[in-house]
Amino acid sequence: MNKSMIQPFNFARIPQIIFGTGKLSTLYEIIPTFGKKILLVIGEKSLKRSGRWDEITSNLDSKEFNYSQISISGEPSPSLIDDCLEKFRSHDIDIVVGIGGGSVIDAGKAISGMLPKTDSIVNYLEGVGHKTHDGNKIPYLALPTTSGTGSEATKNAVISKIGKNGFKKSLRHDNLIPNIAIIDPELMITCPPSISASCGMDAFTQLLEAYLSPKGSPLTNSLALSGMKYINESLLAVCSEGASNLEMRAAMAYGALLSGICLANAGLGIVHGLASSIGGAFEIPHGVVCGTLLSEATKKNVNKLKTLGTQGDLGLEKYAEIGALLAGVYPPKDNDKLDHCNSLIKTLEIWTQKLKIERLGNYGITADNIDEVLEKTGLKNNPVKLTKEEIRAIIVNRI
Amino acid sequence: MNKSMIQPFNFARIPQIIFGTGKLSTLYEIIPTFGKKILLVIGEKSLKRSGRWDEITSNLDSKEFNYSQISISGEPSPSLIDDCLEKFRSHDIDIVVGIGGGSVIDAGKAISGMLPKTDSIVNYLEGVGHKTHDGNKIPYLALPTTSGTGSEATKNAVISKIGKNGFKKSLRHDNLIPNIAIIDPELMITCPPSISASCGMDAFTQLLEAYLSPKGSPLTNSLALSGMKYINESLLAVCSEGASNLEMRAAMAYGALLSGICLANAGLGIVHGLASSIGGAFEIPHGVVCGTLLSEATKKNVNKLKTLGTQGDLGLEKYAEIGALLAGVYPPKDNDKLDHCNSLIKTLEIWTQKLKIERLGNYGITADNIDEVLEKTGLKNNPVKLTKEEIRAIIVNRI
Repeated sequence: MNKSMIQPFNFARIPQIIFGTGKLSTLYEIIPTFGKKILLVIGEKSLKRSGRWDEITSNLDSKEFNYSQISISGEPSPSLIDDCLEKFRSHDIDIVVGIGGGSVIDAGKAISGMLPKTDSIVNYLEGVGHKTHDGNKIPYLALPTTSGTGSEATKNAVISKIGKNGFKKSLRHDNLIPNIAIIDPELMITCPPSISASCGMDAFTQLLEAYLSPKGSPLTNSLALSGMKYINESLLAVCSEGASNLEMRAAMAYGALLSGICLANAGLGIVHGLASSIGGAFEIPHGVVCGTLLSEATKKNVNKLKTLGTQGDLGLEKYAEIGALLAGVYPPKDNDKLDHCNSLIKTLEIWTQKLKIERLGNYGITADNIDEVLEKTGLKNNPVKLTKEEIRAIIVNRI
Repeated sequence: MNKSMIQPFNFARIPQIIFGTGKLSTLYEIIPTFGKKILLVIGEKSLKRSGRWDEITSNLDSKEFNYSQISISGEPSPSLIDDCLEKFRSHDIDIVVGIGGGSVIDAGKAISGMLPKTDSIVNYLEGVGHKTHDGNKIPYLALPTTSGTGSEATKNAVISKIGKNGFKKSLRHDNLIPNIAIIDPELMITCPPSISASCGMDAFTQLLEAYLSPKGSPLTNSLALSGMKYINESLLAVCSEGASNLEMRAAMAYGALLSGICLANAGLGIVHGLASSIGGAFEIPHGVVCGTLLSEATKKNVNKLKTLGTQGDLGLEKYAEIGALLAGVYPPKDNDKLDHCNSLIKTLEIWTQKLKIERLGNYGITADNIDEVLEKTGLKNNPVKLTKEEIRAIIVNRI
């Protein structure tokens, strides 16, 4: 296949994006264009840590907006969403505003989609319920306080029930894409290093997996490259001495935003296949699963692609491009392909180490758990087919 | 300014995009999701030339859709739109479908936005009427048959009244962005060389001007680069021996789509400033004005930037990047900057010549007309301020 030949592709809508330092203030002009009754969905920690909560409530008060609020702790479960719906379905909410990390943005998205319905969200979750969401929703504004999932730009909300029969499944419809994403790096400067690190690794994983996906298009590829370039320039900084550097936070926020756009339109690979099965069974932050598995999964993919002869060339070329991008020598010369693949793996290993991304074992996952995890793991749009044993090796090396 | 530092930016919604050979057929599945009463807005020539008109109508007939149609000849005027509105406002149209070149897509967009109103479009045109459009519209599907304006992805419809007090002005609102753009390269293979050439030059101009615009963001910049890469690989081909090559037509269609996304979010420069004033006064295709002026305007911008010292560096760097991109040596080395700027100008001159882009004089424009044109010419988001005399020189060289 000629690499630059454009194969058919679909590209979903993206939200209207308002990006930049200080743009939080646009919230108060935007809200009244949708109505008066606001449901604020916030995190238990991130917004209060940012010191902006008082400012937000006093602004809402001064404009005499009618707002209610709910706090989300951890990744949203079906019962958490259903409890919220029971409370607010009778309130004639005009607009839902989610301000927080990926879990909060997902929760707000699910609530905006489920408020017009009369039953449980479980009925609409992919692979769990038997109903299909019709896209009817209450308008939704998303304001991320971390740079990770890019949920502010995606059409799905991940809902988790953790435990033996647990799952991480999506409520999904093109129309669930937030109406507007307000991305203000000032909301991110108090995000602690460990969260900045795991969220950042998640965003990078999404960009890399989307770039390697056979479902990608020149459109998602150009965005993925741009996002990886900016994350490469800022990830280590925001997790250390650059934590309050707005330029670095903006670069991460931009990369995370693009990771959401790319995953929504190109799909993901084996790391997210595992994040879904591991995250359903164990209480472990999504970003940690992705971050801890990325370098091992990349190594496995590259090695498998090498065994495929010319069939593996396109995948190796793409990995080599990212290796070269991260090393600042993009685009790579043809004869350096394998060197650049190795350099990519090395860089990801260094990031994993410098960012102190935890191992799966720290969350109680042992070799005994792998079979049940593999049972529920899909390859998604991984650039190469991996056997169960190959996937097992990815996990084993990070326990 | 650090070039890679992200300045605040807004990014409007884009349509849902369905891209690829054969995708015209998705039209018949999409229409019923919006309703039954269809208004087809088509060109007088392009669709019939494509040989697909009979196929479309027989498909619509076989599904018992209720459709009306209007044909658009040339660039849409206020009276053409108003006549159509008078005829169809009482028809309870569910969906407007525009299939044609840029003028047709613009006309359909204007009609979709004006059907819910009760008065003339003139009242809502920027700089002409005194009302602001509220975004309320009938859903709109856009199917381009040329690769040019990218109107399938923009929020404005250009309406022209040509003559002494003429204008080219926009009906504009974020919500006027088509709901869905179906981009099928098969619809483009019968587009004749002269139209493929002028439309292609328009698309390239939009990408280049958006890339140079101070309002651009990393998001528009990455898309503009991707679009210019594909146009560079296909423009000369589709205007000659590659006219029916679907891979080449897809590359051009992709570039044109991205040019619409980029112009809507980054703005344009002096070439489009002149296209507006010249196009309002003279009956000349928009793509010809852009195509004929692009190399001269680029030369003028580069020369002016050179006189500005360090203030001109960012602009020259960006022009150099495009010069290197077109020459296949992207990214450029620092010390070759001016060489790459010159190579860009040279390439644009070669395109202008090989594509036989007509001079303004062929449309009755003489040196005597320049003062009235300059009177109405705005710089838009040109990367450098040009004096009236400098703008005059751009025109004079292409009369």
